[in-house]
Amino acid sequence: MYILILLRHGESTWNRENRFTGWTDVDLSEKGLDEAHNAGKLLRAGGYTFDVAYTSVLKRAIRTLWITLDEMDLMWIPVSRSWRLNERHYGALQGLNKSETAAKYGDEQVFIWRRSYDIPPPALDEEDERNPKKDPRYGDLRPEEYPLTECLKDTVARFLPYWNEEIAPAIKSGKRVLIAAHGNSLRALVKHLDNIADDEIPKLNIPTAVPLVYELDENLRPIRHYYLGDQAEIEAAIKSVEKQGKSK
Amino acid sequence: MYILILLRHGESTWNRENRFTGWTDVDLSEKGLDEAHNAGKLLRAGGYTFDVAYTSVLKRAIRTLWITLDEMDLMWIPVSRSWRLNERHYGALQGLNKSETAAKYGDEQVFIWRRSYDIPPPALDEEDERNPKKDPRYGDLRPEEYPLTECLKDTVARFLPYWNEEIAPAIKSGKRVLIAAHGNSLRALVKHLDNIADDEIPKLNIPTAVPLVYELDENLRPIRHYYLGDQAEIEAAIKSVEKQGKSK
Repeated sequence: MYILILLRHGESTWNRENRFTGWTDVDLSEKGLDEAHNAGKLLRAGGYTFDVAYTSVLKRAIRTLWITLDEMDLMWIPVSRSWRLNERHYGALQGLNKSETAAKYGDEQVFIWRRSYDIPPPALDEEDERNPKKDPRYGDLRPEEYPLTECLKDTVARFLPYWNEEIAPAIKSGKRVLIAAHGNSLRALVKHLDNIADDEIPKLNIPTAVPLVYELDENLRPIRHYYLGDQAEIEAAIKSVEKQGKSK
Repeated sequence: MYILILLRHGESTWNRENRFTGWTDVDLSEKGLDEAHNAGKLLRAGGYTFDVAYTSVLKRAIRTLWITLDEMDLMWIPVSRSWRLNERHYGALQGLNKSETAAKYGDEQVFIWRRSYDIPPPALDEEDERNPKKDPRYGDLRPEEYPLTECLKDTVARFLPYWNEEIAPAIKSGKRVLIAAHGNSLRALVKHLDNIADDEIPKLNIPTAVPLVYELDENLRPIRHYYLGDQAEIEAAIKSVEKQGKSK
Protein backbone atom coordinates (compact mmCIF):
# COMPACT_ATOMS: atom_id res chain seq x y z
CA MET A 1 0.00 0.00 0.00
CA TYR A 2 1.20 3.51 -0.84
CA ILE A 3 0.61 6.78 1.01
CA LEU A 4 0.20 9.98 -0.98
CA ILE A 5 -0.37 13.33 0.71
CA LEU A 6 -2.02 16.31 -0.95
CA LEU A 7 -1.74 19.81 0.48
CA ARG A 8 -3.58 22.86 -0.81
CA HIS A 9 -1.59 26.06 -0.12
CA GLY A 10 -2.47 28.18 2.92
CA GLU A 11 -4.75 31.19 2.59
CA SER A 12 -3.36 33.69 0.08
CA THR A 13 -3.81 37.44 0.18
CA TRP A 14 -6.36 37.09 -2.63
CA ASN A 15 -8.20 34.22 -0.89
CA ARG A 16 -8.56 36.67 2.00
CA GLU A 17 -9.85 39.39 -0.33
CA ASN A 18 -12.10 36.78 -2.00
CA ARG A 19 -10.65 37.49 -5.45
CA PHE A 20 -10.27 35.07 -8.36
CA THR A 21 -6.55 34.29 -8.44
CA GLY A 22 -5.75 31.61 -11.03
CA TRP A 23 -2.20 32.07 -12.30
CA THR A 24 -1.68 35.42 -10.53
CA ASP A 25 1.41 34.89 -8.35
CA VAL A 26 0.12 36.23 -5.02
CA ASP A 27 1.74 35.32 -1.72
CA LEU A 28 0.35 33.74 1.45
CA SER A 29 -1.47 35.91 3.98
CA GLU A 30 -0.38 35.90 7.65
CA LYS A 31 -3.13 33.34 8.28
CA GLY A 32 -1.84 31.29 5.34
CA LEU A 33 1.67 31.27 6.81
CA ASP A 34 0.25 30.01 10.12
CA GLU A 35 -1.79 27.36 8.32
CA ALA A 36 1.31 26.12 6.52
CA HIS A 37 3.26 25.86 9.79
CA ASN A 38 0.35 23.93 11.29
CA ALA A 39 0.27 21.54 8.33
CA GLY A 40 3.96 20.78 8.80
CA LYS A 41 3.52 20.26 12.54
CA LEU A 42 0.53 17.94 12.00
CA LEU A 43 2.47 15.85 9.49
CA ARG A 44 5.49 15.65 11.75
CA ALA A 45 3.38 14.76 14.80
CA GLY A 46 1.62 12.09 12.72
CA GLY A 47 4.95 10.43 11.97
CA TYR A 48 4.79 11.13 8.23
CA THR A 49 7.87 11.67 6.15
CA PHE A 50 8.57 12.19 2.44
CA ASP A 51 11.18 11.22 -0.12
CA VAL A 52 10.17 13.77 -2.76
CA ALA A 53 7.78 16.70 -3.17
CA TYR A 54 5.98 18.22 -6.13
CA THR A 55 4.63 21.72 -6.43
CA SER A 56 3.57 24.37 -8.92
CA VAL A 57 5.51 27.43 -10.13
CA LEU A 58 3.36 29.75 -7.99
CA LYS A 59 4.78 31.09 -4.75
CA ARG A 60 1.74 30.44 -2.55
CA ALA A 61 2.17 26.70 -3.15
CA ILE A 62 5.98 26.78 -3.05
CA ARG A 63 6.02 28.75 0.21
CA THR A 64 3.47 26.39 1.76
CA LEU A 65 5.76 23.52 0.77
CA TRP A 66 8.90 25.27 2.08
CA ILE A 67 7.30 25.94 5.45
CA THR A 68 5.98 22.37 5.66
CA LEU A 69 9.39 20.88 4.81
CA ASP A 70 11.08 23.23 7.27
CA GLU A 71 8.72 22.15 10.09
CA MET A 72 9.38 18.50 9.21
CA ASP A 73 13.19 18.99 9.01
CA LEU A 74 12.99 17.82 5.38
CA MET A 75 14.42 20.84 3.55
CA TRP A 76 16.89 18.48 1.90
CA ILE A 77 14.41 16.32 -0.08
CA PRO A 78 14.18 16.82 -3.86
CA VAL A 79 11.42 19.20 -5.00
CA SER A 80 10.03 19.32 -8.54
CA ARG A 81 8.09 22.36 -9.73
CA SER A 82 5.75 22.25 -12.71
CA TRP A 83 3.25 24.64 -14.27
CA ARG A 84 1.08 21.53 -14.70
CA LEU A 85 0.36 21.72 -10.95
CA ASN A 86 -0.65 25.39 -11.16
CA GLU A 87 -4.08 26.56 -10.12
CA ARG A 88 -6.72 26.53 -12.87
CA HIS A 89 -6.26 29.61 -15.08
CA TYR A 90 -9.20 31.88 -14.30
CA GLY A 91 -9.06 33.90 -17.52
CA ALA A 92 -10.47 37.42 -17.45
CA LEU A 93 -11.93 36.84 -13.98
CA GLN A 94 -8.43 36.95 -12.42
CA GLY A 95 -8.29 39.85 -9.98
CA LEU A 96 -12.06 40.29 -9.65
CA ASN A 97 -13.84 39.93 -6.33
CA LYS A 98 -15.93 36.74 -6.22
CA SER A 99 -18.91 38.24 -4.36
CA GLU A 100 -18.98 41.40 -6.52
CA THR A 101 -18.81 39.24 -9.63
CA ALA A 102 -21.70 37.16 -8.27
CA ALA A 103 -23.70 40.32 -7.52
CA LYS A 104 -23.10 41.49 -11.11
CA TYR A 105 -23.56 38.22 -13.03
CA GLY A 106 -25.61 36.22 -10.53
CA ASP A 107 -24.70 33.39 -8.17
CA GLU A 108 -25.58 30.80 -10.76
CA GLN A 109 -23.24 32.18 -13.43
CA VAL A 110 -20.38 32.44 -10.93
CA PHE A 111 -21.04 28.91 -9.70
CA ILE A 112 -20.79 27.77 -13.33
CA TRP A 113 -17.49 29.61 -13.81
CA ARG A 114 -16.14 28.27 -10.52
CA ARG A 115 -17.35 24.73 -10.63
CA SER A 116 -18.59 23.72 -14.08
CA TYR A 117 -16.44 20.91 -15.40
CA ASP A 118 -16.28 22.06 -18.99
CA ILE A 119 -17.38 25.70 -19.24
CA PRO A 120 -14.38 28.06 -18.91
CA PRO A 121 -14.63 31.65 -17.67
CA PRO A 122 -14.17 34.44 -20.26
CA ALA A 123 -10.62 34.31 -21.67
CA LEU A 124 -7.82 36.82 -21.21
CA ASP A 125 -7.08 38.90 -24.25
CA GLU A 126 -4.09 37.60 -26.22
CA GLU A 127 -2.53 41.08 -25.76
CA ASP A 128 -3.17 41.14 -21.99
CA GLU A 129 -0.03 41.70 -19.89
CA ARG A 130 -1.05 38.60 -17.95
CA ASN A 131 -0.81 36.31 -20.98
CA PRO A 132 1.50 33.53 -19.71
CA LYS A 133 3.55 33.86 -22.91
CA LYS A 134 5.00 37.05 -21.40
CA ASP A 135 6.23 35.32 -18.22
CA PRO A 136 9.66 33.61 -18.34
CA ARG A 137 8.52 30.88 -15.95
CA TYR A 138 6.37 29.53 -18.79
CA GLY A 139 9.17 29.71 -21.37
CA ASP A 140 9.22 25.95 -21.95
CA LEU A 141 5.55 25.54 -22.86
CA ARG A 142 4.63 24.58 -26.40
CA PRO A 143 2.62 27.24 -28.27
CA GLU A 144 -0.64 25.27 -27.93
CA GLU A 145 -0.15 24.84 -24.17
CA TYR A 146 -0.46 28.50 -23.11
CA PRO A 147 -3.88 28.99 -21.49
CA LEU A 148 -5.85 32.25 -21.61
CA THR A 149 -8.57 30.59 -19.51
CA GLU A 150 -9.33 27.07 -18.31
CA CYS A 151 -12.27 25.00 -17.19
CA LEU A 152 -11.51 22.15 -14.80
CA LYS A 153 -11.49 19.75 -17.75
CA ASP A 154 -8.59 21.74 -19.22
CA THR A 155 -6.76 21.62 -15.89
CA VAL A 156 -7.24 17.84 -15.74
CA ALA A 157 -5.90 17.53 -19.30
CA ARG A 158 -2.67 19.45 -18.58
CA PHE A 159 -2.18 17.94 -15.14
CA LEU A 160 -2.59 14.26 -16.08
CA PRO A 161 0.57 13.92 -18.22
CA TYR A 162 2.62 15.11 -15.23
CA TRP A 163 0.84 12.66 -12.94
CA ASN A 164 1.30 9.78 -15.35
CA GLU A 165 4.89 10.50 -16.35
CA GLU A 166 6.41 11.87 -13.12
CA ILE A 167 4.39 11.47 -9.95
CA ALA A 168 2.72 8.07 -10.38
CA PRO A 169 6.03 6.33 -11.31
CA ALA A 170 7.68 7.90 -8.24
CA ILE A 171 4.93 6.53 -5.98
CA LYS A 172 5.13 3.09 -7.60
CA SER A 173 8.90 3.07 -7.08
CA GLY A 174 8.19 3.29 -3.34
CA LYS A 175 8.80 6.98 -2.84
CA ARG A 176 6.67 8.77 -0.25
CA VAL A 177 5.22 11.73 -2.11
CA LEU A 178 3.90 15.12 -1.01
CA ILE A 179 2.06 17.32 -3.52
CA ALA A 180 1.68 20.97 -2.49
CA ALA A 181 -0.62 22.62 -5.00
CA HIS A 182 -3.92 24.44 -5.50
CA GLY A 183 -7.65 23.98 -5.01
CA ASN A 184 -8.34 23.09 -8.62
CA SER A 185 -5.18 21.20 -9.57
CA LEU A 186 -5.83 19.00 -6.51
CA ARG A 187 -9.52 18.65 -7.47
CA ALA A 188 -8.27 17.49 -10.89
CA LEU A 189 -6.14 14.84 -9.18
CA VAL A 190 -8.86 13.73 -6.78
CA LYS A 191 -11.32 13.45 -9.68
CA HIS A 192 -8.83 11.19 -11.44
CA LEU A 193 -7.95 9.09 -8.37
CA ASP A 194 -11.51 8.58 -7.17
CA ASN A 195 -12.97 8.44 -10.66
CA ILE A 196 -15.53 11.14 -9.81
CA ALA A 197 -18.13 11.81 -12.50
CA ASP A 198 -18.07 15.17 -14.33
CA ASP A 199 -21.43 16.17 -12.78
CA GLU A 200 -20.32 15.20 -9.26
CA ILE A 201 -17.02 17.10 -9.17
CA PRO A 202 -18.60 20.57 -8.67
CA LYS A 203 -19.53 19.52 -5.11
CA LEU A 204 -15.94 18.71 -4.12
CA ASN A 205 -14.22 21.41 -2.06
CA ILE A 206 -10.71 21.14 -0.60
CA PRO A 207 -9.79 23.34 2.39
CA THR A 208 -6.50 25.28 2.54
CA ALA A 209 -3.41 23.70 4.12
CA VAL A 210 -5.09 20.61 5.61
CA PRO A 211 -3.04 17.50 4.74
CA LEU A 212 -5.23 15.10 2.74
CA VAL A 213 -3.98 11.53 3.06
CA TYR A 214 -4.65 9.00 0.30
CA GLU A 215 -3.94 5.34 0.88
CA LEU A 216 -3.49 3.71 -2.53
CA ASP A 217 -3.29 0.08 -3.64
CA GLU A 218 -0.57 -1.26 -5.94
CA ASN A 219 -2.41 0.12 -8.98
CA LEU A 220 -2.74 3.52 -7.27
CA ARG A 221 -6.47 2.99 -6.70
CA PRO A 222 -7.62 4.69 -3.49
CA ILE A 223 -8.35 2.42 -0.53
CA ARG A 224 -9.42 5.33 1.65
CA HIS A 225 -8.65 8.98 2.24
CA TYR A 226 -8.92 11.35 5.18
CA TYR A 227 -7.86 14.79 6.33
CA LEU A 228 -5.37 15.17 9.20
CA GLY A 229 -6.45 17.34 12.13
CA ASP A 230 -9.61 18.41 13.93
CA GLN A 231 -12.51 17.01 11.89
CA ALA A 232 -15.10 19.64 12.90
CA GLU A 233 -12.71 22.48 11.94
CA ILE A 234 -12.04 20.78 8.61
CA GLU A 235 -15.77 20.44 7.91
CA ALA A 236 -16.21 24.17 8.58
CA ALA A 237 -13.25 25.00 6.29
CA ILE A 238 -14.80 22.95 3.46
CA LYS A 239 -18.12 24.80 3.87
CA SER A 240 -16.35 28.15 3.71
CA VAL A 241 -14.71 27.28 0.35
CA GLU A 242 -18.19 26.42 -0.96
CA LYS A 243 -19.61 29.79 0.13
CA GLN A 244 -16.92 31.99 -1.47
CA GLY A 245 -18.69 32.29 -4.81
CA LYS A 246 -21.99 33.56 -3.41
CA SER A 247 -23.02 37.20 -3.55
CA LYS A 248 -23.57 37.27 0.23
CA MET B 1 30.36 34.56 -22.35
CA TYR B 2 28.66 32.86 -19.44
CA ILE B 3 27.91 34.22 -15.97
CA LEU B 4 28.06 31.86 -12.98
CA ILE B 5 27.33 33.04 -9.47
CA LEU B 6 28.61 31.35 -6.32
CA LEU B 7 27.12 32.06 -2.92
CA ARG B 8 28.45 30.74 0.37
CA HIS B 9 25.65 30.41 2.95
CA GLY B 10 25.12 33.14 5.53
CA GLU B 11 26.61 32.87 9.01
CA SER B 12 25.40 29.72 10.76
CA THR B 13 24.89 29.27 14.49
CA TRP B 14 28.11 27.26 14.57
CA ASN B 15 30.04 29.85 12.51
CA ARG B 16 28.99 32.27 15.23
CA GLU B 17 30.19 29.90 17.95
CA ASN B 18 33.38 29.27 15.93
CA ARG B 19 32.81 25.50 15.86
CA PHE B 20 33.82 23.06 13.15
CA THR B 21 30.58 22.22 11.35
CA GLY B 22 31.18 20.01 8.31
CA TRP B 23 28.11 17.88 7.65
CA THR B 24 26.33 18.87 10.87
CA ASP B 25 22.99 20.31 9.74
CA VAL B 26 22.96 23.58 11.71
CA ASP B 27 20.76 26.49 10.73
CA LEU B 28 21.56 30.13 9.92
CA SER B 29 22.03 32.62 12.76
CA GLU B 30 20.01 35.86 12.81
CA LYS B 31 23.01 37.55 11.19
CA GLY B 32 23.11 34.79 8.58
CA LEU B 33 19.44 35.35 7.73
CA ASP B 34 20.16 39.06 7.26
CA GLU B 35 23.18 38.29 5.11
CA ALA B 36 21.09 36.04 2.88
CA HIS B 37 18.44 38.74 2.42
CA ASN B 38 21.20 41.21 1.52
CA ALA B 39 22.66 38.80 -1.03
CA GLY B 40 19.26 38.49 -2.73
CA LYS B 41 18.77 42.25 -2.74
CA LEU B 42 22.27 42.85 -4.18
CA LEU B 43 21.66 40.34 -6.96
CA ARG B 44 18.26 41.81 -7.77
CA ALA B 45 19.60 45.37 -7.73
CA GLY B 46 22.46 44.26 -10.00
CA GLY B 47 19.97 43.02 -12.58
CA TYR B 48 20.99 39.37 -12.25
CA THR B 49 18.55 36.54 -12.78
CA PHE B 50 18.81 32.75 -12.86
CA ASP B 51 17.31 29.85 -14.75
CA VAL B 52 18.37 27.15 -12.31
CA ALA B 53 20.00 26.82 -8.89
CA TYR B 54 22.13 24.16 -7.24
CA THR B 55 22.63 23.61 -3.55
CA SER B 56 23.67 21.03 -0.97
CA VAL B 57 21.46 18.89 1.29
CA LEU B 58 22.33 21.06 4.32
CA LYS B 59 19.79 23.60 5.54
CA ARG B 60 22.16 26.54 5.98
CA ALA B 61 22.83 26.50 2.22
CA ILE B 62 19.23 25.66 1.26
CA ARG B 63 17.81 28.43 3.45
CA THR B 64 20.33 30.92 2.06
CA LEU B 65 19.16 29.91 -1.42
CA TRP B 66 15.45 30.12 -0.48
CA ILE B 67 15.86 33.62 0.95
CA THR B 68 17.88 34.73 -2.09
CA LEU B 69 15.30 33.36 -4.54
CA ASP B 70 12.49 34.92 -2.52
CA GLU B 71 14.18 38.34 -2.61
CA MET B 72 14.66 37.97 -6.38
CA ASP B 73 11.06 36.77 -6.97
CA LEU B 74 12.52 33.55 -8.40
CA MET B 75 10.96 30.97 -6.09
CA TRP B 76 9.69 29.17 -9.22
CA ILE B 77 13.07 28.24 -10.78
CA PRO B 78 14.20 24.61 -10.61
CA VAL B 79 16.51 23.78 -7.70
CA SER B 80 18.75 20.70 -7.55
CA ARG B 81 20.16 19.51 -4.24
CA SER B 82 23.18 17.24 -3.99
CA TRP B 83 25.37 15.93 -1.16
CA ARG B 84 28.26 16.59 -3.58
CA LEU B 85 27.85 20.30 -2.83
CA ASN B 86 27.97 19.72 0.95
CA GLU B 87 30.61 21.33 3.11
CA ARG B 88 33.82 19.34 3.54
CA HIS B 89 33.25 16.61 6.13
CA TYR B 90 35.23 17.65 9.20
CA GLY B 91 35.49 14.19 10.77
CA ALA B 92 35.93 14.00 14.53
CA LEU B 93 36.48 17.77 14.72
CA GLN B 94 32.77 18.41 14.02
CA GLY B 95 31.26 20.21 17.00
CA LEU B 96 34.58 21.35 18.49
CA ASN B 97 35.41 25.01 18.97
CA LYS B 98 38.10 26.14 16.53
CA SER B 99 40.01 28.35 18.97
CA GLU B 100 39.90 25.78 21.79
CA THR B 101 41.10 23.13 19.36
CA ALA B 102 43.93 25.47 18.33
CA ALA B 103 44.83 26.10 21.98
CA LYS B 104 44.97 22.34 22.55
CA TYR B 105 46.69 21.15 19.37
CA GLY B 106 48.42 24.37 18.29
CA ASP B 107 47.61 26.92 15.57
CA GLU B 108 49.76 25.08 13.08
CA GLN B 109 47.97 21.75 13.48
CA VAL B 110 44.58 23.41 13.18
CA PHE B 111 45.71 25.35 10.10
CA ILE B 112 46.73 22.02 8.58
CA TRP B 113 43.36 20.46 9.38
CA ARG B 114 41.52 23.51 8.07
CA ARG B 115 43.53 24.31 5.01
CA SER B 116 45.85 21.49 4.03
CA TYR B 117 44.90 20.18 0.62
CA ASP B 118 45.47 16.51 1.30
CA ILE B 119 45.68 15.90 5.07
CA PRO B 120 42.22 15.11 6.52
CA PRO B 121 41.26 15.75 10.15
CA PRO B 122 40.85 12.68 12.42
CA ALA B 123 37.97 10.53 11.17
CA LEU B 124 34.64 9.88 12.86
CA ASP B 125 34.29 6.44 14.33
CA GLU B 126 32.35 4.06 12.06
CA GLU B 127 29.95 3.56 15.01
CA ASP B 128 29.49 7.29 15.61
CA GLU B 129 25.87 8.46 15.50
CA ARG B 130 27.02 11.10 13.00
CA ASN B 131 28.17 8.52 10.43
CA PRO B 132 26.35 9.67 7.26
CA LYS B 133 25.25 6.06 6.70
CA LYS B 134 22.73 6.62 9.49
CA ASP B 135 21.12 9.65 7.82
CA PRO B 136 18.36 9.01 5.23
CA ARG B 137 19.43 12.03 3.16
CA TYR B 138 22.53 10.06 2.19
CA GLY B 139 20.59 6.90 1.34
CA ASP B 140 21.60 6.97 -2.33
CA LEU B 141 25.38 7.03 -1.80
CA ARG B 142 27.42 4.03 -2.82
CA PRO B 143 29.18 2.26 0.09
CA GLU B 144 32.59 3.70 -0.85
CA GLU B 145 31.22 7.25 -1.03
CA TYR B 146 30.33 7.73 2.66
CA PRO B 147 32.94 10.01 4.24
CA LEU B 148 34.03 9.80 7.89
CA THR B 149 36.38 12.74 7.27
CA GLU B 150 37.60 14.67 4.23
CA CYS B 151 40.54 16.78 3.18
CA LEU B 152 39.85 19.37 0.48
CA LYS B 153 41.21 16.95 -2.12
CA ASP B 154 38.44 14.51 -1.16
CA THR B 155 35.86 17.29 -1.45
CA VAL B 156 37.17 18.19 -4.92
CA ALA B 157 36.97 14.52 -5.93
CA ARG B 158 33.32 14.10 -4.92
CA PHE B 159 32.28 17.54 -6.17
CA LEU B 160 33.80 17.36 -9.65
CA PRO B 161 31.53 14.62 -11.07
CA TYR B 162 28.52 16.78 -10.20
CA TRP B 163 30.13 19.82 -11.81
CA ASN B 164 31.05 17.90 -14.94
CA GLU B 165 27.81 15.98 -15.34
CA GLU B 166 25.19 18.45 -14.11
CA ILE B 167 26.29 22.04 -13.63
CA ALA B 168 28.78 22.60 -16.47
CA PRO B 169 26.37 21.22 -19.13
CA ALA B 170 23.60 23.49 -17.77
CA ILE B 171 25.87 26.53 -18.09
CA LYS B 172 26.95 25.53 -21.60
CA SER B 173 23.30 25.12 -22.61
CA GLY B 174 22.89 28.84 -21.84
CA LYS B 175 21.29 28.54 -18.40
CA ARG B 176 22.13 31.23 -15.87
CA VAL B 177 23.28 29.28 -12.82
CA LEU B 178 23.39 30.08 -9.10
CA ILE B 179 25.27 27.74 -6.74
CA ALA B 180 24.46 28.21 -3.05
CA ALA B 181 26.90 26.08 -1.09
CA HIS B 182 29.68 26.08 1.51
CA GLY B 183 33.13 27.52 2.16
CA ASN B 184 34.97 24.38 1.12
CA SER B 185 32.75 23.04 -1.64
CA LEU B 186 33.05 26.48 -3.26
CA ARG B 187 36.83 26.50 -2.68
CA ALA B 188 36.86 23.14 -4.47
CA LEU B 189 35.06 24.72 -7.42
CA VAL B 190 37.21 27.85 -7.48
CA LYS B 191 40.36 25.70 -7.37
CA HIS B 192 39.07 23.80 -10.38
CA LEU B 193 37.90 26.88 -12.33
CA ASP B 194 41.02 28.99 -11.71
CA ASN B 195 43.36 26.01 -11.79
CA ILE B 196 44.85 26.97 -8.42
CA ALA B 197 47.84 24.90 -7.32
CA ASP B 198 47.50 22.57 -4.30
CA ASP B 199 49.94 24.66 -2.27
CA GLU B 200 48.19 27.94 -3.14
CA ILE B 201 44.64 26.92 -2.24
CA PRO B 202 45.14 27.19 1.59
CA LYS B 203 45.27 30.99 1.19
CA LEU B 204 41.87 31.22 -0.50
CA ASN B 205 39.04 32.32 1.83
CA ILE B 206 35.45 32.93 0.74
CA PRO B 207 33.23 35.20 2.89
CA THR B 208 29.67 34.24 3.85
CA ALA B 209 26.74 35.28 1.63
CA VAL B 210 28.62 37.61 -0.71
CA PRO B 211 27.71 36.85 -4.34
CA LEU B 212 30.87 35.84 -6.22
CA VAL B 213 30.47 36.46 -9.95
CA TYR B 214 32.47 34.41 -12.46
CA GLU B 215 32.52 35.41 -16.09
CA LEU B 216 33.43 32.32 -18.11
CA ASP B 217 34.42 31.84 -21.74
CA GLU B 218 32.85 29.23 -24.03
CA ASN B 219 35.07 26.52 -22.49
CA LEU B 220 34.10 27.65 -18.99
CA ARG B 221 37.52 29.18 -18.40
CA PRO B 222 37.32 32.23 -16.12
CA ILE B 223 37.73 35.62 -17.80
CA ARG B 224 37.42 37.46 -14.50
CA HIS B 225 35.67 37.22 -11.17
CA TYR B 226 34.54 39.69 -8.54
CA TYR B 227 32.41 39.98 -5.42
CA LEU B 228 29.22 42.05 -5.46
CA GLY B 229 28.90 44.73 -2.80
CA ASP B 230 31.09 47.01 -0.72
CA GLN B 231 34.68 45.99 -1.46
CA ALA B 232 36.18 47.12 1.89
CA GLU B 233 33.55 45.15 3.84
CA ILE B 234 34.24 42.10 1.69
CA GLU B 235 37.98 42.38 2.33
CA ALA B 236 37.31 42.49 6.09
CA ALA B 237 35.00 39.46 5.84
CA ILE B 238 37.68 37.46 4.00
CA LYS B 239 40.23 38.32 6.73
CA SER B 240 37.83 37.19 9.43
CA VAL B 241 37.43 33.72 7.83
CA GLU B 242 41.24 33.44 7.82
CA LYS B 243 41.44 34.25 11.55
CA GLN B 244 38.85 31.71 12.74
CA GLY B 245 41.35 28.89 13.21
CA LYS B 246 43.71 30.79 15.47
CA SER B 247 43.85 30.27 19.20
CA LYS B 248 43.31 34.01 19.82
